[in-house]
Amino acid sequence: MSKSIYVLNGPNLNLLGVREPEIYGYTRLDDIKASCEALTTAAGYTLVFHQSNHEGQLIDWIHEARTAAAALIINPAGYGHTSVALLDALKTLTVPIIECHLSNPAAREAFRHHTYVSHVAKGVIAGFGPIGYELAISAVLRLIEQP
Amino acid sequence: MSKSIYVLNGPNLNLLGVREPEIYGYTRLDDIKASCEALTTAAGYTLVFHQSNHEGQLIDWIHEARTAAAALIINPAGYGHTSVALLDALKTLTVPIIECHLSNPAAREAFRHHTYVSHVAKGVIAGFGPIGYELAISAVLRLIEQP
Amino acid sequence: MSKSIYVLNGPNLNLLGVREPEIYGYTRLDDIKASCEALTTAAGYTLVFHQSNHEGQLIDWIHEARTAAAALIINPAGYGHTSVALLDALKTLTVPIIECHLSNPAAREAFRHHTYVSHVAKGVIAGFGPIGYELAISAVLRLIEQP
Amino acid sequence: MSKSIYVLNGPNLNLLGVREPEIYGYTRLDDIKASCEALTTAAGYTLVFHQSNHEGQLIDWIHEARTAAAALIINPAGYGHTSVALLDALKTLTVPIIECHLSNPAAREAFRHHTYVSHVAKGVIAGFGPIGYELAISAVLRLIEQP
Amino acid sequence: MSKSIYVLNGPNLNLLGVREPEIYGYTRLDDIKASCEALTTAAGYTLVFHQSNHEGQLIDWIHEARTAAAALIINPAGYGHTSVALLDALKTLTVPIIECHLSNPAAREAFRHHTYVSHVAKGVIAGFGPIGYELAISAVLRLIEQP
Amino acid sequence: MSKSIYVLNGPNLNLLGVREPEIYGYTRLDDIKASCEALTTAAGYTLVFHQSNHEGQLIDWIHEARTAAAALIINPAGYGHTSVALLDALKTLTVPIIECHLSNPAAREAFRHHTYVSHVAKGVIAGFGPIGYELAISAVLRLIEQP
Amino acid sequence: MSKSIYVLNGPNLNLLGVREPEIYGYTRLDDIKASCEALTTAAGYTLVFHQSNHEGQLIDWIHEARTAAAALIINPAGYGHTSVALLDALKTLTVPIIECHLSNPAAREAFRHHTYVSHVAKGVIAGFGPIGYELAISAVLRLIEQP
Amino acid sequence: MSKSIYVLNGPNLNLLGVREPEIYGYTRLDDIKASCEALTTAAGYTLVFHQSNHEGQLIDWIHEARTAAAALIINPAGYGHTSVALLDALKTLTVPIIECHLSNPAAREAFRHHTYVSHVAKGVIAGFGPIGYELAISAVLRLIEQP
Amino acid sequence: MSKSIYVLNGPNLNLLGVREPEIYGYTRLDDIKASCEALTTAAGYTLVFHQSNHEGQLIDWIHEARTAAAALIINPAGYGHTSVALLDALKTLTVPIIECHLSNPAAREAFRHHTYVSHVAKGVIAGFGPIGYELAISAVLRLIEQP
Amino acid sequence: MSKSIYVLNGPNLNLLGVREPEIYGYTRLDDIKASCEALTTAAGYTLVFHQSNHEGQLIDWIHEARTAAAALIINPAGYGHTSVALLDALKTLTVPIIECHLSNPAAREAFRHHTYVSHVAKGVIAGFGPIGYELAISAVLRLIEQP
Amino acid sequence: MSKSIYVLNGPNLNLLGVREPEIYGYTRLDDIKASCEALTTAAGYTLVFHQSNHEGQLIDWIHEARTAAAALIINPAGYGHTSVALLDALKTLTVPIIECHLSNPAAREAFRHHTYVSHVAKGVIAGFGPIGYELAISAVLRLIEQP
Amino acid sequence: MSKSIYVLNGPNLNLLGVREPEIYGYTRLDDIKASCEALTTAAGYTLVFHQSNHEGQLIDWIHEARTAAAALIINPAGYGHTSVALLDALKTLTVPIIECHLSNPAAREAFRHHTYVSHVAKGVIAGFGPIGYELAISAVLRLIEQP
Repeated sequence: MSKSIYVLNGPNLNLLGVREPEIYGYTRLDDIKASCEALTTAAGYTLVFHQSNHEGQLIDWIHEARTAAAALIINPAGYGHTSVALLDALKTLTVPIIECHLSNPAAREAFRHHTYVSHVAKGVIAGFGPIGYELAISAVLRLIEQP
Repeated sequence: MSKSIYVLNGPNLNLLGVREPEIYGYTRLDDIKASCEALTTAAGYTLVFHQSNHEGQLIDWIHEARTAAAALIINPAGYGHTSVALLDALKTLTVPIIECHLSNPAAREAFRHHTYVSHVAKGVIAGFGPIGYELAISAVLRLIEQP
Repeated sequence: MSKSIYVLNGPNLNLLGVREPEIYGYTRLDDIKASCEALTTAAGYTLVFHQSNHEGQLIDWIHEARTAAAALIINPAGYGHTSVALLDALKTLTVPIIECHLSNPAAREAFRHHTYVSHVAKGVIAGFGPIGYELAISAVLRLIEQP
Repeated sequence: MSKSIYVLNGPNLNLLGVREPEIYGYTRLDDIKASCEALTTAAGYTLVFHQSNHEGQLIDWIHEARTAAAALIINPAGYGHTSVALLDALKTLTVPIIECHLSNPAAREAFRHHTYVSHVAKGVIAGFGPIGYELAISAVLRLIEQP
Repeated sequence: MSKSIYVLNGPNLNLLGVREPEIYGYTRLDDIKASCEALTTAAGYTLVFHQSNHEGQLIDWIHEARTAAAALIINPAGYGHTSVALLDALKTLTVPIIECHLSNPAAREAFRHHTYVSHVAKGVIAGFGPIGYELAISAVLRLIEQP
Repeated sequence: MSKSIYVLNGPNLNLLGVREPEIYGYTRLDDIKASCEALTTAAGYTLVFHQSNHEGQLIDWIHEARTAAAALIINPAGYGHTSVALLDALKTLTVPIIECHLSNPAAREAFRHHTYVSHVAKGVIAGFGPIGYELAISAVLRLIEQP
Repeated sequence: MSKSIYVLNGPNLNLLGVREPEIYGYTRLDDIKASCEALTTAAGYTLVFHQSNHEGQLIDWIHEARTAAAALIINPAGYGHTSVALLDALKTLTVPIIECHLSNPAAREAFRHHTYVSHVAKGVIAGFGPIGYELAISAVLRLIEQP
Repeated sequence: MSKSIYVLNGPNLNLLGVREPEIYGYTRLDDIKASCEALTTAAGYTLVFHQSNHEGQLIDWIHEARTAAAALIINPAGYGHTSVALLDALKTLTVPIIECHLSNPAAREAFRHHTYVSHVAKGVIAGFGPIGYELAISAVLRLIEQP
Repeated sequence: MSKSIYVLNGPNLNLLGVREPEIYGYTRLDDIKASCEALTTAAGYTLVFHQSNHEGQLIDWIHEARTAAAALIINPAGYGHTSVALLDALKTLTVPIIECHLSNPAAREAFRHHTYVSHVAKGVIAGFGPIGYELAISAVLRLIEQP
Repeated sequence: MSKSIYVLNGPNLNLLGVREPEIYGYTRLDDIKASCEALTTAAGYTLVFHQSNHEGQLIDWIHEARTAAAALIINPAGYGHTSVALLDALKTLTVPIIECHLSNPAAREAFRHHTYVSHVAKGVIAGFGPIGYELAISAVLRLIEQP
Repeated sequence: MSKSIYVLNGPNLNLLGVREPEIYGYTRLDDIKASCEALTTAAGYTLVFHQSNHEGQLIDWIHEARTAAAALIINPAGYGHTSVALLDALKTLTVPIIECHLSNPAAREAFRHHTYVSHVAKGVIAGFGPIGYELAISAVLRLIEQP
Repeated sequence: MSKSIYVLNGPNLNLLGVREPEIYGYTRLDDIKASCEALTTAAGYTLVFHQSNHEGQLIDWIHEARTAAAALIINPAGYGHTSVALLDALKTLTVPIIECHLSNPAAREAFRHHTYVSHVAKGVIAGFGPIGYELAISAVLRLIEQP
């Protein structure tokens, strides 16, 4: 079985920690990548970590993950609420999919209450900020060992 | 008049016949392209056949088809249900547009019951699997001869 | 296996080609029947072709088709949008069902966007006018040979 | 500050691991309690762990947690979707609230897609089965240390 | 197999026959219990008959019925329309569940037209007043003999 | 007072027991008629038992029942969900009306959750298969004796 | 131009004046026919007056009216709210169509507030009881003279 | 009993026949008043005929009609769809109220399909243009004579 | 601070006690004004009491109240359900606003369940008939003293 | 007639004045009870004053009030929005019911805009904080004297 | 062609700059009128500038504008969301209509997202405060010159 | 502060003036760019003007504008109605955002009535064709000078 874990990040997440850090915090996406990498390496897995503002690019990476990944964590950001194409791409995977959000969408505007990604996600972690990624890696590692 | 027939394929269709063929069948998108080409060549037309996971790329091709195509067949996949931009691009065409789906969206989840493409499609063919593309080419050829 | 192909036509289709032909075209339902018959005979099948304005009569014919037909093509016209009874009748068939419409219902009034027949149709062909029936016969013949 | 962590479980969760274990797994609520206790004890916290089928009883415990808890984890089960009273009780807390579900409600029936608890939850963890409770304890411990 | 038949009654049914009997009739819940008991005893079954205004109490009895009952009849009264928790409790049963209402909810206010109990009920009997309980017992006895 | 009891059956019920009996059971509509007749004869009533796939025919029989019936049991099948005309016909009756369904419509697709017949039915019996008709006859006989 | 005026009556209107006349009035459909006939004869027109409980029969008469009628008055009763087929039949007429109701549907249940017939009716007259038919004839005669 | 008949006209009706008469016709509101007056005078009644663009003014006149009118005809125009205040005013009348529209609102935009006036109107006449007022006067006169 | 208390009354309230007093009671709006005046005078405040059927007039008075009133009580009647303009006028006030209804709108038709006035009302008193005005004055006086 | 007045309080109201009094005020439920008692004693009535977080307990008290109370005031809190069972219990009372809320639910979240209690409440008082209870007692006393 | 430009202002706009100017700004409606006048005079046009809280008055001015105006700018305020009568008045104009709002309604409450005025407006300018009027005048002048 | 003004154009706007200019006008996007540039240069600002059919490309440019722009004007075309990702990107800006449409979306199909961009736009200008861009530049320049 593959020993890679994919973590995909959707639109606008490249601004994390860059935009007004004194307000939103200094954690950048690279910092999150580093924490994730520490956990996966310790467990004997390789981390594949991407971000894109392009819906098509995210779909391409999901296709790549079909044969290359042992599990996939995705923070779909805005595309999670609107993209049937993303859902269809995720449906082609057979490994566990985890949906991860920095904030709790259910506590925000109504149009954020539903995500297509949830239709196929094995689990959802939302509202813990950057810590959520680490929880997701922990969950994924346990799911792989004891499916 | 142009002698080209455009067939555009939306997101995830590149996986056709690749993903678990023992279950979903061995027909790949290239096989479909070949059957379509046989029909169009026999009728004296050139086939232009594309697939992309990128919404913007599909729109670019539709713009190209404005002057280059005698007819356009599109399987919009997931973008058919969500993309007003795709609809607006198709609205700029004056040649016949055929909407084609491998399965019957009306028999699947509720969010697949509506497509924006249907607003401008001359005809719809859905539910016949790969055969549907051949039916669409046949229909298009007859529409061009006797509009 | 039976060698009959049923083509059923719902309410108001008896007026096809009769009503203001200079506007709506001169093709009558009998002409459509003739084109269909040419195709089925050539393929070694018998055509059974009916029209009725009575919902109950259409259900009776569908019951008859249960043992007598190799496939069934239905243009339900107005009953397609409202009749659960028709749906229940079609559910008793095990042979392929094709839904056929002269125009594209998705491009007309909202109350025509949904048909109960689509719940059980193997495929849908819509928007091609009389040509659609011929496409449906072609599709049906290929489905029977290579199910 | 209080050194207790409350974990409340709503209706029917007492049957966990009892009902057809060969199908649903052998993990009982007591086993979950034990894993949670291991984590909280190691971190120097006391675990308060309850289950009830009575909505009013759950509200009474939430009131108790107002002064007694450093954080509260709740699996509201069926009451999460229907109880405004539960929401109002949770609103009186100032410590972090985590919502936890064994399965992913968004992938089940529509009436499970919304929970009132989400209006006030700091974070949500869903779909990981019994593992989810441990993820919730880990998350809670980190939130308390670095609020 | 167990030889007990459970009959559970939801909120306000304790007032049956007590409240303005000259208008609503003199049949009390105890009278209904007696008629039910006559039927079950004659068939060699024991009747377990309860009423409560507390949702949690009803769930506790349903849990008890998991191992103790051969069948369960429930008149959920007001909780039938609002309680997902009750539905989840009933889902843990494997014996037949019958839903019983004194009046016909479909002929009353809109908020009474849907019950969660109906999602899992084998059968529904509504609108016959106290007689409905006897019909339910008769039905249950036949279902047990010839499942 | 009339001594006839009407039992009317809507579209597709003529296929009962005929269509794949090894799956759906061998009980035919004639068998149901026989069981009903046994009960009504024993009670000194005549049974009038009809089935039709034609909505208008069912309405004609309901009109006939206005003066000829002591009670009416109807399994409206698909017409129950769509026919205001049927409802208006039933509204002209003054004798008790019982609605009867083989399966429980509330546990099927959403479009089967509402029936117009329920607006005027004294009682509803659903989900008991052929037994439901016998329960309906029993109920009707008791209602006539002690209205 | 044709000199016939069609008046079509939908389901259950045959009971007018028959059912409890002391309450609903003694005017029968034949009396209405007579008053209409007096008006049309005086104006030099022939009256064609029908009633049926069968949707298909009404459609057949509308088709007949396409060439035979100078105007058509229809009281669609229950079919007005549910029949797209009836609407499609009426759409084939070019003469004026008047919709007529004994009571005012807008003041009754919600499912009677919309009729498909209104989509194509030149005028609507509702709520005047039998007098409404005479008003409709008067209106029709004036519309024909001064279109 | 009063011998006055009130005809009230809502906003914008003062433009009738004034605005582009070559398109909309030359009938002015004064012409309509004259035809109505001819009919009421012949029957021994006085006509009170008003128009206003002010909602409050219309309500004042309705209050006046409470004691002064034998019947009231109202063309509420745009206020019919939005004014609960108008409805409440009309509810204080005990004489017959007739709702009258030049065009058929049911055949126009969706927001014109419902009028509050219909809740209390004895009858509705719509779609006949200026003729509709005369039909309304005729109807009203007959209703007064034989209530 | 101003020593005036405004009480505004919307459309149709001028008919209070005038229209069929033997049924609706003999209390006129003037009587209500008198009871209110007694209470305000006793407390050292001046009463400003108006009624109008004109929406614009009510808005003008609310503007006047901006500088002249210590509190405002409004019974918006029908305008409460439909007038965004009234809401916007009330939003310009900084003194307490009390909404008052003679009957309980929540127990009447659905279109009366929502009022725009409630968006800005400090308190609501409904269902007590004329007494409600006195309760509102009492409430207002206490709110002014101890805001 | 009974001389007791019942005041029932729903979930979470036991926290009144306890939770952060410097923000929400120091008035406790006991203080409210005292003010109510002063008013009822002065008028010669006994006060029965309860609070519970248990829906079933509230229903039990309402049943008790059927014979013991001259009037009932209820602040249903969260259960008011969700409990059909509570509504059914209140429906069994014949004495006046007053609904009382500390804040104005109509000015809060949408799911608080509707309460089932309003269906049967004689009057509603909302938004006045603790003062509202005193207004309710005053209203109730006047209603009893002059029903 | 007329050389007048109409600017109409709906309810509550008379308070602009009057109400708490230190918060909402010191620009009064008269200042806006002055800036508009400067622009129209420079372009050789006369400005007609009105404000009213009365819906009927606004309609009267729109009727006046039918023959007197070269273009009409309207800030309908609250009436824009609720007034079909205003829409019908504007429909009688043939000159360009511009809709102007001080704030951006799409960024406020849901009931402000739709305006009937938008159905007929050539253009919309929203969210720019008083500057928006000047932009509207500039736009109108250019539209008149080069339609 | 930055001296650049960004103007971003969404999908299909590259066809402006290219597609059937005799019908849609000869103004191309380059012409609009030129008019905008004239205005910004005159005011001492640099214009950055882009068009793309790719959603991700538009988001990239918005990110770039975060530090590079003094204001941003966006014509989101089809993406405005569907893209939450675009909204999230715009939310990261602190400079004024203006939404600009060639036509008035509120006067077109229902799915164009809402745009996510409006949630964050300071102002909206719609329906003025190419002139709208110049109005937007003028507005932006004034907003920057006097924020």
